[in-house]
Amino acid sequence: MNIAVDKRNFTVGPVQMPYAVREIGLQQVPYFRTGEFSGLMLENERLLLEMLYASAGTRVVSLTGSGTAGMEAAVMNTLNNHDKVLVVNGGGFGERFVDLCRLHSIPYEEIRLPFGRGLVEKDLAPYEGKGFTAFLVNYHETSTGVLYDMRLICDFCERNGCFLVVDAISSFLADPFYMGEWGVNVVVTGSQKAYAIPPGLSLVALDGIAQERVMRNTCRSMYFDFKAYLKDGERGQTPFTPAVGTLIQLNKRLLDIAEAGMESVLRRTAMLAGHFRKAIEAAGLPLTIASDSLSNAVTPLFVREGKDAYEVFKCLEREHGIWVCPNGGELKHKLFRVGHLGDLTEDDNNALVDALGQLYQAGKL
Amino acid sequence: MNIAVDKRNFTVGPVQMPYAVREIGLQQVPYFRTGEFSGLMLENERLLLEMLYASAGTRVVSLTGSGTAGMEAAVMNTLNNHDKVLVVNGGGFGERFVDLCRLHSIPYEEIRLPFGRGLVEKDLAPYEGKGFTAFLVNYHETSTGVLYDMRLICDFCERNGCFLVVDAISSFLADPFYMGEWGVNVVVTGSQKAYAIPPGLSLVALDGIAQERVMRNTCRSMYFDFKAYLKDGERGQTPFTPAVGTLIQLNKRLLDIAEAGMESVLRRTAMLAGHFRKAIEAAGLPLTIASDSLSNAVTPLFVREGKDAYEVFKCLEREHGIWVCPNGGELKHKLFRVGHLGDLTEDDNNALVDALGQLYQAGKL
Repeated sequence: MNIAVDKRNFTVGPVQMPYAVREIGLQQVPYFRTGEFSGLMLENERLLLEMLYASAGTRVVSLTGSGTAGMEAAVMNTLNNHDKVLVVNGGGFGERFVDLCRLHSIPYEEIRLPFGRGLVEKDLAPYEGKGFTAFLVNYHETSTGVLYDMRLICDFCERNGCFLVVDAISSFLADPFYMGEWGVNVVVTGSQKAYAIPPGLSLVALDGIAQERVMRNTCRSMYFDFKAYLKDGERGQTPFTPAVGTLIQLNKRLLDIAEAGMESVLRRTAMLAGHFRKAIEAAGLPLTIASDSLSNAVTPLFVREGKDAYEVFKCLEREHGIWVCPNGGELKHKLFRVGHLGDLTEDDNNALVDALGQLYQAGKL
Repeated sequence: MNIAVDKRNFTVGPVQMPYAVREIGLQQVPYFRTGEFSGLMLENERLLLEMLYASAGTRVVSLTGSGTAGMEAAVMNTLNNHDKVLVVNGGGFGERFVDLCRLHSIPYEEIRLPFGRGLVEKDLAPYEGKGFTAFLVNYHETSTGVLYDMRLICDFCERNGCFLVVDAISSFLADPFYMGEWGVNVVVTGSQKAYAIPPGLSLVALDGIAQERVMRNTCRSMYFDFKAYLKDGERGQTPFTPAVGTLIQLNKRLLDIAEAGMESVLRRTAMLAGHFRKAIEAAGLPLTIASDSLSNAVTPLFVREGKDAYEVFKCLEREHGIWVCPNGGELKHKLFRVGHLGDLTEDDNNALVDALGQLYQAGKL
């Protein structure tokens, strides 16, 4: 079946890949139980830990699966029913952490935030000194576009002795992240976001304390058991056949990012996001940015009363060859999101703003 | 890091991909929450069910993960602690099913087979009428190259009312498989075998009875819960971001296989395997085929006493640009395997036989 692959892609993933990554997709996928592939895996781990500003002894698990696989594996491997977990639930992905705790019988309480609002001091106050042992948060709640204040969270975790697990799937390489300095114990990332490689891979970083938790815990899944990944990873291997091709693409991206420098990579995404936000304002489009705490990764946009956000997505797809990211659930018809990840340029932004202008003229926005 | 990808690849996966598949790897990975991608997924399901000769109402779950992820998900979703499971354990992958039953507290007994031997009537006799409710088997035990007699197994399951789960990861599209006629309830397959697409995807087919088991069971994993996959699959979607690019490559392959016809695809692999087996015999190489019940997928070969199979693998890789498949564990130095899956030709076979001839001359074989 023929399927369009060449639209301008402003979704939050899969995102547009640089040519150097796609070129690897044209190659054969090599056999992987070799010294050469082990070397590549160890290089991936080293580069990734540098980019996370991780503390010494931190390790990376390469899990073949979606970001949710990484989130679930992190929960199953590092938490158990002796924990008392505090979860920030400000949208679909916070809710996912809540669901994972419930499913795996891990005691938890949740901080439910109003739509689009960041976390503030008073949200945490009621939970101070209440014996919480762990904290789960999505650095960037991708469903609503809210970026949480990590400094606030880290301070809370330090004061309360909480083990800290962060889903940084849609924000890593888009927003500054300092795993070591912030005392984050587990970070979950996903290949189809700012890595700009195909979906199907979740990279999970575990500091020394997290590794101790993994070793003490019983993980009731063979595929998700980090013990085996950490052991085989010492020699650059995985317990099961991984997405070998995607790992080679990851290597290329990490080398390119290292060469460009993290500051430059973050600055580029921040500039692209800033450019788009200014452009829609300058164009006088009737769109409202839906959060007071934005990530560089995404701009969440409300349409006017009486207009249909999902119809905007459909029109852009059908008539303009552009994908923005629709929302699911209650917000489906009110909100759409514009991503700034992957191989996008200011020209792409301009094309999108032009197309939105045409929809506005046509009374669809 | 530069990594060789262009050796002749006779491993059991990842295998060599046709150019038409690789070409898709060069493209952008499109956004997938669209009607177009749903259509592709539904076409994949329809084509795959035709190739499995599945009975009406059978469904396919597309799980992003390795073959082991598919095996574990199949066990977690369709079996529970009220079952009494019989497992055929003739090697590493039979052992994996045993480990999965133990890990998930599913009562089981195992039939341990001597190395390299197929399953025969008398192996099953002690288990007749003993109240077994389910049967787990690897159609092809990839670690040793043994193909089991499915007719024998299906008859046993029919007589004993056993629910039948088959790992056909390395044999599907290489050996004849008749899911409906054989009364197989669950079939697990993997993308990097005869599908000849990149690793990272496990396709699991579930007949009506299997779907009922899924619906009744509590699956203690969000990522592996087939209920959500079956529900979202009705409209051609998945609960979590799948390996979109690999699913598009799968679509291309399934269409090409459908056009060529299953008989022709199976015949090609059988001929390639037959050609190789005759060629090593004709060359008078001191290699012994290690099984009396061969799959078309693989030829397992013992080296002579005093020679080192792992060294043969290393020499072929280093000096001849050829990958064969080494074994792990006890057999590492005694056995290597030659795969016949993927985009291989008789010329490739000849190149391998020549290289083995040179190793023989040099005293390394």
